[in-house]
Amino acid sequence: MWKPYIEKYEKELLESVIPFWENHCVDKEFGGYFTSLDRDGSVYDTTKYMWMQWRIVYMFAEIYLAGYKKDEYIAIAEKGFDFLYKHGRDKNGMYYFALNREGVPAMAPYSLFSDCFAAMGAAKLYKITGKELYADAAREAMNNYITRAKSGNSALQWNKSLAGKTPYLSLGHYMMMANLGLIMNDCLGSNEFASAMDTAVDMVLNKFYSPDFGLVFENMPVNGDKPDLDSSIGRQMNPGHVLEAMWFLLSYLENVPGSEDKIDAICKIISNTLEFGWDKEFGGIFYFMDALGKPHLELQHDMKLWWVHNEAILACLYAYDISRKDEYLQWFKKLDQWSWERYPDPEFGEWFAYLNRRGECTHTLKGGKWKTFFHVPRCLLFATERMKKIARG
Amino acid sequence: MWKPYIEKYEKELLESVIPFWENHCVDKEFGGYFTSLDRDGSVYDTTKYMWMQWRIVYMFAEIYLAGYKKDEYIAIAEKGFDFLYKHGRDKNGMYYFALNREGVPAMAPYSLFSDCFAAMGAAKLYKITGKELYADAAREAMNNYITRAKSGNSALQWNKSLAGKTPYLSLGHYMMMANLGLIMNDCLGSNEFASAMDTAVDMVLNKFYSPDFGLVFENMPVNGDKPDLDSSIGRQMNPGHVLEAMWFLLSYLENVPGSEDKIDAICKIISNTLEFGWDKEFGGIFYFMDALGKPHLELQHDMKLWWVHNEAILACLYAYDISRKDEYLQWFKKLDQWSWERYPDPEFGEWFAYLNRRGECTHTLKGGKWKTFFHVPRCLLFATERMKKIARG
Repeated sequence: MWKPYIEKYEKELLESVIPFWENHCVDKEFGGYFTSLDRDGSVYDTTKYMWMQWRIVYMFAEIYLAGYKKDEYIAIAEKGFDFLYKHGRDKNGMYYFALNREGVPAMAPYSLFSDCFAAMGAAKLYKITGKELYADAAREAMNNYITRAKSGNSALQWNKSLAGKTPYLSLGHYMMMANLGLIMNDCLGSNEFASAMDTAVDMVLNKFYSPDFGLVFENMPVNGDKPDLDSSIGRQMNPGHVLEAMWFLLSYLENVPGSEDKIDAICKIISNTLEFGWDKEFGGIFYFMDALGKPHLELQHDMKLWWVHNEAILACLYAYDISRKDEYLQWFKKLDQWSWERYPDPEFGEWFAYLNRRGECTHTLKGGKWKTFFHVPRCLLFATERMKKIARG
Repeated sequence: MWKPYIEKYEKELLESVIPFWENHCVDKEFGGYFTSLDRDGSVYDTTKYMWMQWRIVYMFAEIYLAGYKKDEYIAIAEKGFDFLYKHGRDKNGMYYFALNREGVPAMAPYSLFSDCFAAMGAAKLYKITGKELYADAAREAMNNYITRAKSGNSALQWNKSLAGKTPYLSLGHYMMMANLGLIMNDCLGSNEFASAMDTAVDMVLNKFYSPDFGLVFENMPVNGDKPDLDSSIGRQMNPGHVLEAMWFLLSYLENVPGSEDKIDAICKIISNTLEFGWDKEFGGIFYFMDALGKPHLELQHDMKLWWVHNEAILACLYAYDISRKDEYLQWFKKLDQWSWERYPDPEFGEWFAYLNRRGECTHTLKGGKWKTFFHVPRCLLFATERMKKIARG
């Protein structure tokens, strides 16, 4: 059964998604990338958002490393690195949130995820080239990320919270710590960040997971081991985030002997999250939800975002590969069909980003402040690889 | 034709909206108000967001002043003032963005609109009671608001913008300056803030209005007199904001001799904004738009928000009263019908807040972080008053 799926995913990656970005994202004049791209690849804003920039470095390098070797991919990634490393860091080595087109800092370094994606991109370039500058840049960004994630105040002086606000831990911090740890260990060839993955596994399964709900919460109180059900932020659920975190954890634990119980727990969370997050009326997975079904503060809570479905597809494939349980195969087929009928743009390539609850497209953009060359190609690449592995048996 | 409209609006105010808040918003234990109220008035979060809190003080006082005199209204407003004045200010007298239920500051005073709504609420209480404390509180908050609005950095140390970001002026700052100026002059009985209205009129008509588009922009570059059409933020349009600003300006200028040209210009902007903002396919007015029809960064751009329609109804009634042009009457009827078929909740009272593009309700909440006892009752109250004035001829 896998051959047509494998062909579909690989062809979409190589003939639709990569060419779209290769042709449209490179800023040949100033360096760095355009990510605010309309349906046809035309640029509608030139702000250089750091998450979006570094993810392009990472993704072209990742695709090269996966065996789709083209010199152009390295060139695009290395030129991006040059621009971002030169212009992107403040005096403490932390990455700004955004630069303007010319490279002048435009938004302060309030987000630790700028450092996160810098570490990922630089580490992958080191693996390809062996240049020490890339390893140094990856280490610096990774250390800044870990320091900020563990500090309890990752937003630094831009943090608006005061004593009256319950302090929470954020799932995203630990989710990315797992992914980063794996990438660092693989690319730097050392074991210096090995504890990151174990910390992440421990926190996700023992802090963010609620046995009462069978679900993973987005924000957990720093103090106490129960979700804060009295507040909107405490009840917030983000099924896409959880599914992304779960395949990160599986891709680590599948190589750690004695992880059977943890893997079972993670697969069960994937099942529960899909069941909880799937829209029984219109299909697709909700963006945000409330654990008790109370009103959600985010206006766009019921929209169907491309990345949520990219991550859900990967979670199903990883869970199926490891467990061989039919339910993950069935979920994969359901998600595959729902997504491929709605997101890909056969006319100009790449995928649309935002659908309303009904699954109708609400924005023509292919990239912007929050979408770049990342979730779609990573899904297509890793799904292709994982399906080939499954098909080999 | 006005009698049934007047009865409908006044009845909705007195029998649906006021009782909903009177019954559910008062925190009898700690003071201040609950604003995160679900459909039936049950509390789903106890955070005390300052904009939402002070707007309740303002609105109960405004309704009392309009002649719907009930001692309970003053009591609710004054008890709210006590709590907010005691717990809500930092050492410079600026109002926090949020307190927790007990009154401990929970979010930093990064928004000048906290000061704005404090000034409005305190000023109205002074007009009712003559207590100097209220006048002092209003003056302090108003002066902080004006200082912050004019400083170019209203977010203070929480501002994330750096040199690479084009500096913009924000329509909202001047829109509220007009409204605040009128309220201060009326309530304090002095003329000390008279220049605020003239500044606002001048900025809206000469800075934010683009003759090329016939429309008012949300963000205008500090330097230069044209909108910044190369960036998403420069192209952002917010029709509801514009319509709200226009009736603020009309309510000032209708009493300023020699304002005929300005009034004509404002009425024309109302026409153009309604034409631009109205969804030709599903009806209702869009939340955010792009001046050139490029993709909007906000996911919820095509939603239909209650307050946009409240403000549009008032803009039409003010424009019709002053100009007596039939087009505003027709727009009023169209907006009235579209809104009343969708927003009011006949079962539990009050109005729903958020509809999707099709006009279907997406949230059950009646209040939250951004909805309180404000736009709906203000629309019902001022529309009732204005329609009575029109009906008197």
